[in-house]
Amino acid sequence: MTQTYQVIGTRPIRHDGIDKVTGRALYGADFHAAGLLHGRIVRSPHAHAKIAKIDVARALALPGVEAIATSADLPDAANRMANLGEGAINLSHLSSNCLARGKVHYRGQAVAAVAAVNGHIAEEACKLIQIEYEVLPCVTDVVKAMQPGAPILHDDLVTESMAAPRSQAELGNEKRQPTNIAKHLQYKLGDSAKGFADAAIVIEKSFNTATVHQGYIEPHNASALWNADGTLTIWCSTQGAFTVRAQVAELLAMPIAKIKVVPMEIGGGFGGKIRVYLEPVAAVLSRKTGKPVKVLMDRAACFEATGPTPGSYIKVKVGADKTGRITAAEAYLAYEAGAFPGSPIWAGCVCIFSCYDIPNLLINGYDVCVNKPATSAYRAPGATNAAMAMETVVDEICEKLKIDPLDFRIKNAAKEGSRRADGPVFPKIGAIETSEVAKSHPHYKAPLTKGTNPAFPRGRGVASGFWFNIGLKSCVSAGVNGDGSVSLVEGSTDIGGTRTSIAMQLAEALGIPVKDVKPSVGDTDAVGYTDVTGGSRVTYATGWAAFDAAKDIQRQMIDKVAGFWKVAADDLVYEAGTVKSKRDVSKQMTFREIAAEAQKHGSVIVGRASVDPPWPGGAYAVNIVDVEVDPDTGKVNILRFTAIQDVGKAIHPSYVEGQIQGGSVQGIGWALNEEYVYNDKGAMTNASFLDYRMPTALDLPMIDAVIVEVPDPKHPYGVRGVGEVPIVPPCGAIANAIYAAVGVRMDVLPMSPPRVCKAILAKKN
Amino acid sequence: MTQTYQVIGTRPIRHDGIDKVTGRALYGADFHAAGLLHGRIVRSPHAHAKIAKIDVARALALPGVEAIATSADLPDAANRMANLGEGAINLSHLSSNCLARGKVHYRGQAVAAVAAVNGHIAEEACKLIQIEYEVLPCVTDVVKAMQPGAPILHDDLVTESMAAPRSQAELGNEKRQPTNIAKHLQYKLGDSAKGFADAAIVIEKSFNTATVHQGYIEPHNASALWNADGTLTIWCSTQGAFTVRAQVAELLAMPIAKIKVVPMEIGGGFGGKIRVYLEPVAAVLSRKTGKPVKVLMDRAACFEATGPTPGSYIKVKVGADKTGRITAAEAYLAYEAGAFPGSPIWAGCVCIFSCYDIPNLLINGYDVCVNKPATSAYRAPGATNAAMAMETVVDEICEKLKIDPLDFRIKNAAKEGSRRADGPVFPKIGAIETSEVAKSHPHYKAPLTKGTNPAFPRGRGVASGFWFNIGLKSCVSAGVNGDGSVSLVEGSTDIGGTRTSIAMQLAEALGIPVKDVKPSVGDTDAVGYTDVTGGSRVTYATGWAAFDAAKDIQRQMIDKVAGFWKVAADDLVYEAGTVKSKRDVSKQMTFREIAAEAQKHGSVIVGRASVDPPWPGGAYAVNIVDVEVDPDTGKVNILRFTAIQDVGKAIHPSYVEGQIQGGSVQGIGWALNEEYVYNDKGAMTNASFLDYRMPTALDLPMIDAVIVEVPDPKHPYGVRGVGEVPIVPPCGAIANAIYAAVGVRMDVLPMSPPRVCKAILAKKN
Repeated sequence: MTQTYQVIGTRPIRHDGIDKVTGRALYGADFHAAGLLHGRIVRSPHAHAKIAKIDVARALALPGVEAIATSADLPDAANRMANLGEGAINLSHLSSNCLARGKVHYRGQAVAAVAAVNGHIAEEACKLIQIEYEVLPCVTDVVKAMQPGAPILHDDLVTESMAAPRSQAELGNEKRQPTNIAKHLQYKLGDSAKGFADAAIVIEKSFNTATVHQGYIEPHNASALWNADGTLTIWCSTQGAFTVRAQVAELLAMPIAKIKVVPMEIGGGFGGKIRVYLEPVAAVLSRKTGKPVKVLMDRAACFEATGPTPGSYIKVKVGADKTGRITAAEAYLAYEAGAFPGSPIWAGCVCIFSCYDIPNLLINGYDVCVNKPATSAYRAPGATNAAMAMETVVDEICEKLKIDPLDFRIKNAAKEGSRRADGPVFPKIGAIETSEVAKSHPHYKAPLTKGTNPAFPRGRGVASGFWFNIGLKSCVSAGVNGDGSVSLVEGSTDIGGTRTSIAMQLAEALGIPVKDVKPSVGDTDAVGYTDVTGGSRVTYATGWAAFDAAKDIQRQMIDKVAGFWKVAADDLVYEAGTVKSKRDVSKQMTFREIAAEAQKHGSVIVGRASVDPPWPGGAYAVNIVDVEVDPDTGKVNILRFTAIQDVGKAIHPSYVEGQIQGGSVQGIGWALNEEYVYNDKGAMTNASFLDYRMPTALDLPMIDAVIVEVPDPKHPYGVRGVGEVPIVPPCGAIANAIYAAVGVRMDVLPMSPPRVCKAILAKKN
Repeated sequence: MTQTYQVIGTRPIRHDGIDKVTGRALYGADFHAAGLLHGRIVRSPHAHAKIAKIDVARALALPGVEAIATSADLPDAANRMANLGEGAINLSHLSSNCLARGKVHYRGQAVAAVAAVNGHIAEEACKLIQIEYEVLPCVTDVVKAMQPGAPILHDDLVTESMAAPRSQAELGNEKRQPTNIAKHLQYKLGDSAKGFADAAIVIEKSFNTATVHQGYIEPHNASALWNADGTLTIWCSTQGAFTVRAQVAELLAMPIAKIKVVPMEIGGGFGGKIRVYLEPVAAVLSRKTGKPVKVLMDRAACFEATGPTPGSYIKVKVGADKTGRITAAEAYLAYEAGAFPGSPIWAGCVCIFSCYDIPNLLINGYDVCVNKPATSAYRAPGATNAAMAMETVVDEICEKLKIDPLDFRIKNAAKEGSRRADGPVFPKIGAIETSEVAKSHPHYKAPLTKGTNPAFPRGRGVASGFWFNIGLKSCVSAGVNGDGSVSLVEGSTDIGGTRTSIAMQLAEALGIPVKDVKPSVGDTDAVGYTDVTGGSRVTYATGWAAFDAAKDIQRQMIDKVAGFWKVAADDLVYEAGTVKSKRDVSKQMTFREIAAEAQKHGSVIVGRASVDPPWPGGAYAVNIVDVEVDPDTGKVNILRFTAIQDVGKAIHPSYVEGQIQGGSVQGIGWALNEEYVYNDKGAMTNASFLDYRMPTALDLPMIDAVIVEVPDPKHPYGVRGVGEVPIVPPCGAIANAIYAAVGVRMDVLPMSPPRVCKAILAKKN
């Protein structure tokens, strides 16, 4: 049964579009205030060192310098934990990541900050700050960091283990060995040993994947004004204004009531603009000077000192019977947390096998500190590298069993009632449907095209991907204006066009044109608490709030009309943008008429909603990719790329397609080129967009985005969330296509020309 | 029965106080945006003239000039009427008041506007615009303007008469004489001729009062950005962001949905910052240039071209029987509308006799155009000059009948059940109580003090005043934060500390400390429609909305706790900041605990309310004033001033006292010095704060503000509104004190030294 919609499924121009293309939109760096000071950060040149001494005297003496901040200006958070929207965070780590306390754990870590009358003087002053370091040996590889004798980042780090949890009583006074392993997760379903015994084929492979960056165009920024009454206002480009408020409150030991965060427009985040870096620093510089302070990062700082997604070591073992039914799977995942605990290892464990319904599972996951920047979320965090491993192994099983890889995926697909590795049972999901659509897609049926150079082999690969998506809290308010327009305020910052996708859901629920809705994003004082823009949640959860707010408006409109007509509210119904009498349907008032009358008589109508919906069922995607490989250089060209995704319901198909295309492109970059290159001193050697190679339009074909709609049964419009899962399958699909082309199974990311070349040469020999 | 409150009646520091005293608060003129252009206005040097030609070529050629606007850039509103929050307005008049079309009707009227890269170039360019005028004779006095043969401002003006309303059919093709009388109001109660026949004494006097300005410190300003998508954002200092939106929408023939108005902080308004002057001009300059444009007024423009309160001619006739009971009263009020119809004549008619319960009334009011700036609201608009007339006559009756003037007022006071001249019956009001408090006040009982110069006579006067106050629409929203603080957003712009008085009512209703409420003022996209900050309505109506929002939060908190405890919501009650079980009152959760739990589990709590409450009963005030008169110069010194006022309930007594003191001071300025001085060309000759003499601290004693609380029976906290009535009695009280001192009855405002001197001399001769 297909629901018909008036607004949902159409493609109106986004409300913020004109502002952005004409340069009117105000991003964080556009902030200005009278008396504004400019802040810059002094960063560690060492990957691992003790800070022996910081001498700021010469820098402070430079004319135009107004203040210098170090970790001494931040409260010592000791080992206090706080849940700040990204899960529990050790505050002393978060604080040290803003301004290092005692030690630096990665090159580029912030050590001091300067506020001066302009940016040039601030930069000059940074050079005058004299910092004495005692350099320590560093480790930048997850496997090496887990080995005995590895340099230890945190003397007090204790492994938190699901496999062998121990109480303090058990621990007693035991002296535990220093470790870099912050966490050991373990998930089991059934009996994997028995499953492997039942298998006709077992494939086991291990993989190494590099650290990659989100690569958002806009560098981090933060402006702050610490007012004379002790209140703090922060302007920044962030994925979550309320999340920034919570982090700053904890880091500065302030009540959140004292803080207002004003979200400016954001030039991309992809998970990397959730954690604070500059905000508390701008705040203390403002506190010291009594003036507003704006602190900016340059591109190198974005690479070296924000939160990329982790490099990892992953081992996957999968068994299947001769019919192609998976009998068991095991995974070992070691994720680089970077300088401080907190890699997305949980998500890696949850996602690695979730495309499939597997009776016997054993997953061990490790969160491991290394001397790299503290990792952060990046679009389906931890799922892409995990999927690369699993999908390559699945491809090999299909090859060995001579089963079509899409048939294999359909046969083994997770479905309603399947168990996720960490326990939950899936509701209605679209794993089967996406594989079926892939199978019948013209791309999959078409033969590989031939290139102009017959020496360049071509191949096709497929892969699947899963991301769970999240729910969390969202608030909206919606004031009905006298002309029938609606002013919609949402707490979600808008990265990918969600002002429009939320406005569309409100318009649909009210039965009014979407052009009559004026969406805007509120600051933390202006709208109810709303969680971060992440986890593919905004169109899902904030859209749900918009739906509820529309219902609230409907109720109020019915009450108004009941008053106008002097009838009982129960005798009226709201339908298709009108309030009607149930007894005489010819008697009706339109939304616009009610709005105008409400403006004239009595109180006006304001709707609002606050939601914390259940998490959606999760999103599934399948990629079909054709590649051509230059066997001499190892360069891989993407010839054709089809991305099929269950989106639940596409509110605005263009923006859904945009998300699918954007995620695919980021996946392609990760697959083929992107990586942090480190020297043996722990220094990133390619911290610029010139050397850190992201795909450009010239590197890519048109990405064919195929929308599959298996509505989420709980959401009012069936939305599932679309932003993240598109990045999950590309690495695996491209690896499988490379294998199809040149017969080498890549076990490393990125599959850059030298690595592909080396693999081809190794196979030849 | 006295209600006890935790928050109401306390004196917390206003939330915007620190920002204002430290210079951080952003007023309209502080607006900045990249590429900002600066606008200036070319104003008419003539009080009355036809505009023959405007040549902008030379001005446009000046380097740095980017656009020039004239009335040709505004839609011709013909004679379209619109109700824009100040009552019905003729749009062509409002438009012509922004940029003159065809004619100028007062000196200083805006004729053209320039946008340039800086203010200096814009001013230079203004001088280069060549305007040819055909100068017409002008009239600047209300009495002369009503006489046959007076210069006529509007050829098409027809008197709208309540006394002799005529239908179009009656009018037929009759050629009506041109007139400056826009409106004739008439109110009757009983039979005044019979009332006078029953009187033992009848006093009739006439009065002339000058035009006076609100004298707000901050000049008018407006910035606008007309975006490429046809949306318009306006930043300005205004008493009503939604009112600005409505006016601009009508003047530019745009849907309100296309307009966002961002209210900046406001440096005083007193009624003068409701009508738009610069906003539509900034908008069209921005439309022409594609850039943001900021237009500022200087002080002279504020005097000459904004809306002062009218000069007037008033005749009052009052009869009383020998016991001192008023038997009848008649009034004739002619108010200068200024250039366009719209004086507060209605309010003058309604207020002039409303301190008293008078059985027989006849009031005739006239709204008369003269060649002065179009008048606007000014604190109890039209009531002060009316009260001066009535209170002087009452004083003379008391003198003649040898009755104590406060006893007379108590005896004749309006009370519950009395009829207002225009019809409504008063609910519970505080006219008697204020007079009783005055009578027993130490000031009234104390003998007059003696001065150092025995030749300077001293005298004491009393007078009463009434202002009706208003209700209108208000919206608030209030998000509960995880730390138990509440982010309160109100649609009312804050002039006199209403962020605090609204926050206090929310805090009281929730049973939480007011420091836990963070109030802010929303822009027109951020909060539900809210009427203008005026009519003493904000603490009354928006406070009522805050009360309702608190009830909304209470309901949600009860539902939350019911969920936490798995009990029925009906079993719970919200009391004193906690939710309690009705069955076991020891079982309870505090507001803070519920807020924290709601933050952790499920949707957060957001309250909201939209109200359009009934109008309050009205406000009464009594002044006691002691003066000393220098008989040689006529200078009047205020020795002691006591202002007694029924405020219903004082939410924040300090701010109530501040309103009483501020209103009293403005009344004293009006009484003694303030006036527009015109030459015979219709030019104001004192358009600066040097020559337009406002009282300074050195001119004044401490104003003793006495709060009387006769709660408004309908308002949740008994609030009546306090801002306006304090300005009503001072002129009459001072006139009566002067009489007591030197024996002359002043019949003119201001009672400036030359006028008092002249009156003393006239009496001597």
